[in-house]
Amino acid sequence: MEFLTDFLTKFAAQLQSPTLGFLIGGMVAASVGSRLAIPDPVYKFIVFMLLMKVGLTGGQEIRNANLVDMLLPALFAVIIGILIVFIGRYTLCKLPNVKTEDGIATAGLFGAVSGSTFAAALTLLETQKMSYEAWSAALYPFMDIPALVTAIVLASIYTTSKQHGNTDEYLSKQEYLGKQRVTAGDYPSDQGIVAHGYPSKERQRVKIWPIVKESLQGSALSALLLGLALGLLTQPESVYKTFYEPLFRGLLSVLMLIMGMEAWARVNELRKVAHWYTVYSVIAPLLHGLIAFGFGMIAHYVTNFSLGGVVVLAVMAASSSDISGPPTLRAGIPSANPSAYIGASTAVGTPVAIALGIPLYIGLAQALGG
Amino acid sequence: MEFLTDFLTKFAAQLQSPTLGFLIGGMVAASVGSRLAIPDPVYKFIVFMLLMKVGLTGGQEIRNANLVDMLLPALFAVIIGILIVFIGRYTLCKLPNVKTEDGIATAGLFGAVSGSTFAAALTLLETQKMSYEAWSAALYPFMDIPALVTAIVLASIYTTSKQHGNTDEYLSKQEYLGKQRVTAGDYPSDQGIVAHGYPSKERQRVKIWPIVKESLQGSALSALLLGLALGLLTQPESVYKTFYEPLFRGLLSVLMLIMGMEAWARVNELRKVAHWYTVYSVIAPLLHGLIAFGFGMIAHYVTNFSLGGVVVLAVMAASSSDISGPPTLRAGIPSANPSAYIGASTAVGTPVAIALGIPLYIGLAQALGG
Amino acid sequence: MEFLTDFLTKFAAQLQSPTLGFLIGGMVAASVGSRLAIPDPVYKFIVFMLLMKVGLTGGQEIRNANLVDMLLPALFAVIIGILIVFIGRYTLCKLPNVKTEDGIATAGLFGAVSGSTFAAALTLLETQKMSYEAWSAALYPFMDIPALVTAIVLASIYTTSKQHGNTDEYLSKQEYLGKQRVTAGDYPSDQGIVAHGYPSKERQRVKIWPIVKESLQGSALSALLLGLALGLLTQPESVYKTFYEPLFRGLLSVLMLIMGMEAWARVNELRKVAHWYTVYSVIAPLLHGLIAFGFGMIAHYVTNFSLGGVVVLAVMAASSSDISGPPTLRAGIPSANPSAYIGASTAVGTPVAIALGIPLYIGLAQALGG
Repeated sequence: MEFLTDFLTKFAAQLQSPTLGFLIGGMVAASVGSRLAIPDPVYKFIVFMLLMKVGLTGGQEIRNANLVDMLLPALFAVIIGILIVFIGRYTLCKLPNVKTEDGIATAGLFGAVSGSTFAAALTLLETQKMSYEAWSAALYPFMDIPALVTAIVLASIYTTSKQHGNTDEYLSKQEYLGKQRVTAGDYPSDQGIVAHGYPSKERQRVKIWPIVKESLQGSALSALLLGLALGLLTQPESVYKTFYEPLFRGLLSVLMLIMGMEAWARVNELRKVAHWYTVYSVIAPLLHGLIAFGFGMIAHYVTNFSLGGVVVLAVMAASSSDISGPPTLRAGIPSANPSAYIGASTAVGTPVAIALGIPLYIGLAQALGG
Repeated sequence: MEFLTDFLTKFAAQLQSPTLGFLIGGMVAASVGSRLAIPDPVYKFIVFMLLMKVGLTGGQEIRNANLVDMLLPALFAVIIGILIVFIGRYTLCKLPNVKTEDGIATAGLFGAVSGSTFAAALTLLETQKMSYEAWSAALYPFMDIPALVTAIVLASIYTTSKQHGNTDEYLSKQEYLGKQRVTAGDYPSDQGIVAHGYPSKERQRVKIWPIVKESLQGSALSALLLGLALGLLTQPESVYKTFYEPLFRGLLSVLMLIMGMEAWARVNELRKVAHWYTVYSVIAPLLHGLIAFGFGMIAHYVTNFSLGGVVVLAVMAASSSDISGPPTLRAGIPSANPSAYIGASTAVGTPVAIALGIPLYIGLAQALGG
Repeated sequence: MEFLTDFLTKFAAQLQSPTLGFLIGGMVAASVGSRLAIPDPVYKFIVFMLLMKVGLTGGQEIRNANLVDMLLPALFAVIIGILIVFIGRYTLCKLPNVKTEDGIATAGLFGAVSGSTFAAALTLLETQKMSYEAWSAALYPFMDIPALVTAIVLASIYTTSKQHGNTDEYLSKQEYLGKQRVTAGDYPSDQGIVAHGYPSKERQRVKIWPIVKESLQGSALSALLLGLALGLLTQPESVYKTFYEPLFRGLLSVLMLIMGMEAWARVNELRKVAHWYTVYSVIAPLLHGLIAFGFGMIAHYVTNFSLGGVVVLAVMAASSSDISGPPTLRAGIPSANPSAYIGASTAVGTPVAIALGIPLYIGLAQALGG
């Protein structure tokens, strides 16, 4: 009972943070038709600055970190990324009026990680003086890439089998069978160098490496990894303390504003597709985050992974990719409708992850940690 | 005598401020053909940053403010905004070679408020350690919107009456009659939900609400109001002190540079229209500011409105809108020539307001305040 | 022996600086095909910020400086700028597969100064706590403009003489004669108001003033000179200390990243032209820097020019113009191939100057001074 009161108080406190205020402010401004706009080049630069800072922090920490500690959380990140896509594949895609390719792409985006959401979580953790492993930023690609790869592979398998004359009924039966096979032991088969192509004349095989490469080359992951490398290999302290660190919170507030405006603008796109996307987009971030929170707690008890780190892992799972994911999916699943997956992610998924997810996980962690 | 010496010394000191230096620097650079340019997206972001900061400051202050204190200054701001447009309507528009619609639009722009000029004044007040009510930022829309609405309504009345076969002679007689009717008691009739349309088949009525809405949705007022709301409703102190506040002066210096370059570039546009625009653009900001200074002094004696606040009110009146006003007028008075009103405002009105107006009002206030 | 060890240690330390790290990071990111990009408007603004800061620093220092001290270094800067172009004219242009106009333009770019390289050097000097005359920033135009003017004049002379039926053999003989005439005493003749046009019907004379003007109007020199003027004539300390100075290092790190990516992107352009450009681009910055270092040491012994100042002079000579030079040359030597000179400068010259040149000169100065 005391736990619940404690949790609710802490959850409520998060709702008054400026980070969230700017997000909601952006939504309100857009909803009343404001012509306020942050120019696109500035937006891109802000994203770069935030991810570079997160990367630099992580890189500097990894220098002092025990790499063995990272193993279990990194493995969990991979598992969660894949799991989220499979969950979407066998829930969202089964709902009425949801095209299978669209559903898989949406699940892929929800499995991938948002640098912005992630940055918002780190700021809140610092405000709450909850410590976390700075190398947890390095978990980003471990969840992001497997999710995108899994989505593209699943979509390719679906498209290929459809092209070979499987009737819808047969397919849906197949899918049900598939659903039962969703166990951790099966993932490796999807992660091999090429997926099992169904026998076909064209021998259409899904190549994994190009997807991984495409994902790593995206601007968000590039900035993060470059920051990690620079933090690890050079001595960026002087530039970090005078520039990247002090500007972080402020730039984040601007980004939140942009994301709020963007979320509102995408609501219309979302309306064009089935209502079930909205239902999925509200439930999925919270559910994914809680699953990851559970995995994180295992790591907490096994390897002393900090509760702040557990929150980071949960927020990664709750977030859906907003910058780097969409172009990867557009290239990887060309038949899917971007209005569906971008609308679901940007208009509902991201605000839910930031406004409800982050406070929820921090509140949980604080209540658990005493 | 001592008052005059005191005033002149203080006026001269203002002329050496960096804010003014950057403005003049920009004009000099443009005059010698420099290709120096601050990219447009950066310019827009700087304006956003400044107005967001002004709004956040205001919002945080309003939390602690006595709202009753705001009533008289706000009422005065409305009166001044409308008065400026009427002054222009019955001076500038009567001058030779000045098209009536162009004159009304110019008067509307001079009645509207410039966020940049305003921001420059706040910086100078802080440098001079003159205190002012931070909620005075919230007076902005009270002057800006009535001025734009009045201009659009007056232009509409003029156009409508012209379309109904009134000869020029009749019109000018009408206008003279109108001039005599310019008393405070008459304004409300212009501010009703719709202006009195002259009886006509098309029933062309000027709708006020769309103009107000258009004005509120403009990027400048949106940023300011959003900042006010965030300052009032959230706890933005952390992000304010690490980001918006420290960057304010520097970004303002860049903005002044841009405005100086822009002013020079617009001089040619101004040359294309009648010389009387230049005369108006030099006199009007100073005159409007002094009128507002007078109103402000009434508030100073009646409600203890600070002398710094009086300067803020005067600068608002002296300034002419550079960002949000032009698109509103372009939509509201399509027959007016943008070269006329934007040229007059940007090339002459704004530099005069910043370089002469601000030091003048601060000097006056300091001399009066002892 | 001890000198060499000392030098090598200090040289190695420079290689680990964050400035260099970001440069190399940018090259690595581009080489693996990252889509990371800093938007162009942000890039332009960063360059403005850096040069404005350098100018403001210089201007504030010149106020307190003994202008007589500047005379000798300024004279040396002019000589070095011209000398570099002549060296290129009689080495690079003589190499196989190098078009004379392309070679002259390349030499002009290597003689001109890069604001970015320059800014990187100032940061490193500060990190190393090596003092330098802040007015040394004011030496920039003394080297930059003569180099560009000389290149355009030489190209014009070459083009004119070629048009008048001189055979290649005669020309190359002429050039050899010219080479022997390269003595300090001859420069003034090239710097007169117009160069000696060869008698011709078209009276095609090279006008010097337009080249100087074009150069001064370029965005880089404009920003620097404007900063100098503002630093000299206004009191920019408040805005300098809260904005331009604290952001300097951070913005430089972003610029280095951009330059690294740009360098890699230009490598392909360079491949299209002769290999000799690469050889020249590696050797020239180091050689030019060492020549300037020699001149600087003369000033050090004669007028007590600081060792930091000697490094600044050397880095100016080592650098090749990346922002303002190319458009001036494109206008001034239209027959030259931009891929050649921009490729040589950006892809090889600049990285060599920053990564090898700066550490080399700082190491030398520290070993000599210490």
